[in-house]
Amino acid sequence: MTRSTSGATDQSQKDIRDYCCQLSDHAAIASQSLSTVSGASRTKALHAVAGHIEEAASSIIRANQLDLDEGETQGLSSPLLARLTLDDESLAKMAASVRQIAEQVDPIGQLIEGYRRPNGLRIDKRRVPIGVLLFIYESRPNVTSDAAALCIKSSNAVILRGGKEARHSNTAIAKCIRTGLTDSGLNTDVVQFVETPDRTAVGELLRMEGKIDLAIPRGGESLIKAVVQQAHIPVIKHYTGNCHVYIAAPCDEQMALDICVNAKTQNPAVCNAAETLLFDQNHLENGVLERICQAMADRDVEIRGDQETCKAFAGAKPATEEDWHAEYLDLVVAVKTVSNLDGAVHHINHYGSKHTDTIITTSVQLADQFTEQIDSANVMVNCSTRFSDGGEYGLGAEIGISTDKLHARGPMGAADLTTYKWIVRGDGQIRQ
Amino acid sequence: MTRSTSGATDQSQKDIRDYCCQLSDHAAIASQSLSTVSGASRTKALHAVAGHIEEAASSIIRANQLDLDEGETQGLSSPLLARLTLDDESLAKMAASVRQIAEQVDPIGQLIEGYRRPNGLRIDKRRVPIGVLLFIYESRPNVTSDAAALCIKSSNAVILRGGKEARHSNTAIAKCIRTGLTDSGLNTDVVQFVETPDRTAVGELLRMEGKIDLAIPRGGESLIKAVVQQAHIPVIKHYTGNCHVYIAAPCDEQMALDICVNAKTQNPAVCNAAETLLFDQNHLENGVLERICQAMADRDVEIRGDQETCKAFAGAKPATEEDWHAEYLDLVVAVKTVSNLDGAVHHINHYGSKHTDTIITTSVQLADQFTEQIDSANVMVNCSTRFSDGGEYGLGAEIGISTDKLHARGPMGAADLTTYKWIVRGDGQIRQ
Repeated sequence: MTRSTSGATDQSQKDIRDYCCQLSDHAAIASQSLSTVSGASRTKALHAVAGHIEEAASSIIRANQLDLDEGETQGLSSPLLARLTLDDESLAKMAASVRQIAEQVDPIGQLIEGYRRPNGLRIDKRRVPIGVLLFIYESRPNVTSDAAALCIKSSNAVILRGGKEARHSNTAIAKCIRTGLTDSGLNTDVVQFVETPDRTAVGELLRMEGKIDLAIPRGGESLIKAVVQQAHIPVIKHYTGNCHVYIAAPCDEQMALDICVNAKTQNPAVCNAAETLLFDQNHLENGVLERICQAMADRDVEIRGDQETCKAFAGAKPATEEDWHAEYLDLVVAVKTVSNLDGAVHHINHYGSKHTDTIITTSVQLADQFTEQIDSANVMVNCSTRFSDGGEYGLGAEIGISTDKLHARGPMGAADLTTYKWIVRGDGQIRQ
Repeated sequence: MTRSTSGATDQSQKDIRDYCCQLSDHAAIASQSLSTVSGASRTKALHAVAGHIEEAASSIIRANQLDLDEGETQGLSSPLLARLTLDDESLAKMAASVRQIAEQVDPIGQLIEGYRRPNGLRIDKRRVPIGVLLFIYESRPNVTSDAAALCIKSSNAVILRGGKEARHSNTAIAKCIRTGLTDSGLNTDVVQFVETPDRTAVGELLRMEGKIDLAIPRGGESLIKAVVQQAHIPVIKHYTGNCHVYIAAPCDEQMALDICVNAKTQNPAVCNAAETLLFDQNHLENGVLERICQAMADRDVEIRGDQETCKAFAGAKPATEEDWHAEYLDLVVAVKTVSNLDGAVHHINHYGSKHTDTIITTSVQLADQFTEQIDSANVMVNCSTRFSDGGEYGLGAEIGISTDKLHARGPMGAADLTTYKWIVRGDGQIRQ
């Protein structure tokens, strides 16, 4: 009996493995086929995809309703249900985003460096696609079309694995993408969607060294940790952010207040919202800390402060060690006083997630020290952390904001989904 | 009894873990300290290191003798013993290489991109160090000083793990490096050397996610596979190469012959030596295949051919499937005929190691198709694969030749040991 049960499990594991092998084999063929596809053809395919999304709007919305019904049955919170909901407007935006990516400059073939060596060899370092990508995400269904469009633009084949709560919506969107590819004469398998809900499929794919070139997980910490633990292929991680605002002394108080309020409250649920405010201790005496805390409290922000903050601002609750690590993604902020810039740098490099941190100061010296010493992807002076974003940086769409240091750091656009090739041309050179 | 034995093992495992934690903690402190060290100070430190290597020449040679004695006892082959041997000349070269790295342009702080956004934000993308590196290698002792020098140049802290066969030599060289750092006022732990021979230490270090930013293994396939299997931190792999020469038709026969001979025989033991020759089938009838095989055989190269090759050249032995995968690193070459460029591309992308491949042809169209469709780090036209090298590309020294696609591909110099930071400066901007 035990044997037979074990046999059945082995069989289903084998089916999953076969399915994943098939996905990666098809992706490899699709990737190879892209090496002879022009940039113009990829642009045309993206416009076709956008058209199909518009045409299929009502059937995508019907599929989305199935996800919403299942989500309600399973007790998803209303903010999560709201994030999941698609309507005519969000579908129009989705199509517009695909068209915007289509119109970007083609990164493929771009010359990064080129020179001639003394022996006459001509050396070019040119952008080429990475090959086969695996994108694992939990976010809203529009991430499906954005990610697929960036991969088509950068001439990569991609295997998409979306969250189960958006399964029907993602499948409907993936169908539009694949129809657009076929219509334009591209290999349909340039974009594939993992259809089994079985979680072991992700593990199988993450072990396909040599077949899949890169995994990009984007989502909650537990998702990303699970991917890193299982992966034998390279991973670029997209953690959410524990972002800091350091209100140095001297600073412009009104600017500090406006930036703190904006960084915390303009959209608290996103990764580039501020989670901790660090105040120079001078701001205890001069009242800046108290007035900024009051302004936050007036906007319904809960304040969790260190001892000094709690003394200076009666509305604060005492912070615990966990608060310095927290990514609230909510109307809550941790507040701490530091003795000087070194204290702020130490706190941020220790507790931060290397995402985005900003200093508010009128001192050139402090601004320079902060940008030199903070070890984060995005280091800012006198502006809101909310600007850490591919669109705001002028990259067009982004596949996410890398919190890694390797390959790509910060907002990642289509060019970040490329690698390069050294192309060396000679006329018979041999090595002496 | 069992408990007590298990307790002892647990204790020694704990010691190794504590030791590895100490290494990474010290590296983190050293890395942070480098953020305030100028390029001039790093250059000065490298000159001090070079001086110490020269001064300590006789004690390094004594340490090297211990390695050679142990190697002989353990029956190391004479080529391996030769690679391991240090003398006054090789130590002078080691010091010269460190000085050359010292004099390179400082990559740190270089502006990769910089622009102003419509809202007035000034965005800079600047090169910064990666942080803490783990370099695992099996090669000659000069790799110790080259790798350490490239890390100091690029302002990274590094933990070095050399092969056990060079243990005494590496320890003596590491001492010179650390003395040079201390003399110049830099943190000595910028360069640390793993001193325990215990293999589990590497596994511990490879799991230090968040503490070590990058592992670079350089050596045989088994080393690199073991690293990839164990790592929870990013890895850039340096596999040895299965490099191809494709002799297309039409081509200049003399050029083809010179390049084949050079690529195979000028230094057969290195990763950019050719391992397989692919001949267009036209070269069976016109005698080019036979004459080039004869020229190789005249230079004591053993030829392992497919059926057609064996028919055309009596000196060839039949090749097996393994030969197409082989990295001989010796005077042996696999020879195969292909029906056209597509056949060559398919063979190389299937059997190759994505390292370096060259085409010999007079046809612009074939050259362009080859450079477009071959998915390797280095793709060459009408020159020897042996040029795939940091020095030959004008990068100065190299930490190795990456066979990965992410972050760095092909020869890696000091600039490839950097990442970047987005620095955003405003005057009070908030997001609307």
